Amino acid sequence: MRDYDNINDPVVQRIRAMAERADMLKENGLYFYNRPISELHGVDRVIVDGREMTMFASYSYLGLVGHPRINAAAQAAIEKYGTGTHGVRTLAGSLDLHRELERTIAEFKGTEDAVTFSSGYVTNYSVISALTGRGDYIISDKLNHASIVDGCLMSGAKMLRFRHNDMAHLEARLRQALEANPKAARLVITDAVFSMDGDIIDLPTVAELCRKYDAWLMLDEAHSVGVLGETGRGIEEHFGMEGVVDIKMGTLSKTIPSVGGYVAGRKELVEFLRHASRGYIFSAALPPAQAAAALEAFRVILDEPWRVEKLRTNTKQFISGLQERGFNTLYTETAVVPILCGSDELAFQMTRECQLRNVFALPVVSPAVPHGLARLRATVTAAHEPDEIEYAMDVMAEAAEKLGLFEKLEQILASDARL
Amino acid sequence: MRDYDNINDPVVQRIRAMAERADMLKENGLYFYNRPISELHGVDRVIVDGREMTMFASYSYLGLVGHPRINAAAQAAIEKYGTGTHGVRTLAGSLDLHRELERTIAEFKGTEDAVTFSSGYVTNYSVISALTGRGDYIISDKLNHASIVDGCLMSGAKMLRFRHNDMAHLEARLRQALEANPKAARLVITDAVFSMDGDIIDLPTVAELCRKYDAWLMLDEAHSVGVLGETGRGIEEHFGMEGVVDIKMGTLSKTIPSVGGYVAGRKELVEFLRHASRGYIFSAALPPAQAAAALEAFRVILDEPWRVEKLRTNTKQFISGLQERGFNTLYTETAVVPILCGSDELAFQMTRECQLRNVFALPVVSPAVPHGLARLRATVTAAHEPDEIEYAMDVMAEAAEKLGLFEKLEQILASDARL
Repeated sequence: MRDYDNINDPVVQRIRAMAERADMLKENGLYFYNRPISELHGVDRVIVDGREMTMFASYSYLGLVGHPRINAAAQAAIEKYGTGTHGVRTLAGSLDLHRELERTIAEFKGTEDAVTFSSGYVTNYSVISALTGRGDYIISDKLNHASIVDGCLMSGAKMLRFRHNDMAHLEARLRQALEANPKAARLVITDAVFSMDGDIIDLPTVAELCRKYDAWLMLDEAHSVGVLGETGRGIEEHFGMEGVVDIKMGTLSKTIPSVGGYVAGRKELVEFLRHASRGYIFSAALPPAQAAAALEAFRVILDEPWRVEKLRTNTKQFISGLQERGFNTLYTETAVVPILCGSDELAFQMTRECQLRNVFALPVVSPAVPHGLARLRATVTAAHEPDEIEYAMDVMAEAAEKLGLFEKLEQILASDARL
Repeated sequence: MRDYDNINDPVVQRIRAMAERADMLKENGLYFYNRPISELHGVDRVIVDGREMTMFASYSYLGLVGHPRINAAAQAAIEKYGTGTHGVRTLAGSLDLHRELERTIAEFKGTEDAVTFSSGYVTNYSVISALTGRGDYIISDKLNHASIVDGCLMSGAKMLRFRHNDMAHLEARLRQALEANPKAARLVITDAVFSMDGDIIDLPTVAELCRKYDAWLMLDEAHSVGVLGETGRGIEEHFGMEGVVDIKMGTLSKTIPSVGGYVAGRKELVEFLRHASRGYIFSAALPPAQAAAALEAFRVILDEPWRVEKLRTNTKQFISGLQERGFNTLYTETAVVPILCGSDELAFQMTRECQLRNVFALPVVSPAVPHGLARLRATVTAAHEPDEIEYAMDVMAEAAEKLGLFEKLEQILASDARL
């Protein structure tokens, strides 16, 4: 048993340094993380610390958490198969239910087949490292999710990052990779919708550049499925460019109220991933309840198209309403809405003011976002009603007024040449 | 969209090479992977390809898949919380249920606290890479699970592997690390029970060496919880050495019929992992049904001690019965039983013979195990009845007879000096 008081131990030092940071926030009433929800009231209200708040931090963009059909499907799967499987998919953990889910995802995404994993993080991590290796080039948007970054690192390929959504820089990186070794594989990877900013990747240009430079294209649709496109099918539908993405990755824990991830694509690709990706071979199968919930959720999205429509209406109301109230929402066009605060301190204070009035939004501070771009982040869903959105915006505006946010933000932006 | 016929594309080459290998096995009727189960009949019978087989490849060591209390708990959680959460644990995805599960795990493992992750793979991967970094030394058993290997690679620490369960070599590695840099952190990691071999790490010696060389000790109890120890609490209980392991990692997808992983340990360690491990911060929370199932499963293990006892009895019957029939079961003492075949071909043939007679066991071949050590792998559980185990062993013995396994194995072992 280790001595946690031995401050010469590098691991103890790490543990202590992190504890000090958390303690400082806690002492100042600015620690908003890991707070347990004890009850759900309806679809968009939650009980946290005994108080009912309206949830403005959910990834359940279409309000499907707790949907009766989805709950019933999951409960029936437990009745039939129990709560776990007999192991990994490759060995004794595959159920016909998994295959049904995979066929449904493929149909939803317009591909030949799909493969599921028990974690979205593992999906990116192991798919990227299975497809590429030493000598290859991965060209990755600077704001891509951590799981993509880890997959790139694990692959052994050379990772070239391009400035966020900067197509000239993407082209420069592709040219650089091509010139370094024309015979190497080139893989462009980007989020479809960025999780901290809500903006959409410029898919038309990305797809054109991939053709021009003979590169594979992988998109992470974690925050775009159910959100983008007329029927919620994602970024290809949004741009009317069906079929341009080679490797369509998505998660089952956001719009789809379950857990896990998938890749949809060509039959050969999917077969390859079943045999070559470590996260499929060495990680437990998706449990029956979660596979059934995900399967039913894809059906509900198509059966209840009003949800996608309502999310779109709510998103417009929220973004334009915030802008009318003087907020800077950066480049968002989706359900993820950054409300720029500038400093970490202001982001924390805005969060506190919102939560005191029962609006559950959360801060995003450095190092998760660059210095000077700390923000309150709010997500809007199809479960919100217009008056709830109005209320939340009023609360935010009054908080900004009270804190002098706009004046302080102007000073921060003026003083920081990089912004 | 990529051209999958372009054989100059390195990714296409990878996809094709893997497809050829799988096709060859399929053509020869030797492909036993990814086969979906369509129904469970009772606790240990499954329907695969329309045939009822007795399951000898399950990780549900105590037979808890489908347990009525566990099913009911999961279904109730769906009723209360829905099938997913609002996001990652750090932000909007924490439920009081997660904390209750974590307290229960801590109590079960005799530690101050515990933290859960939505995947066991992610647990190892991100815990190891959060605790250690460049300049540190990780000393790892050569047969450790893939997720441990990936965590070591990701950490940036120097990984020193020691020969499987070879304590002299472990000591040599520890001395090597100490001499290289006395001030660096040293972390010894090993499986408690090895997933392909079923043998148990020599914890008394490992713990002594960790004390002697001032190293942290992490154990992966994926295959030891519910299996080792009088009450199924794992390897510390098995050796009567409570409290020697600093970082007690385990999974929720084997004996515990759910999905996910955990680390139990000191309060400070757990707090650190909540703030520093990427798999906690960037990966979705464990869904309500899975948290509730896991929670109830820990209670069932303690409430139904006959399961651990029956597993022990079944294990003895299986291992000694196989040995009496002339099989080499290597060093297993647990529910994971390797039945040595020598060549990949013999392992596949043994599998086919078993499955033709409705015994669902699976082959493990190179590169998963060293050349010459290919095997049939069978797991025994508390759900098996003595006559089912007798039948399975008879089927295996008759298959071995038919195939001339023992003679061929002797030749293989004789011709390979390394074995």
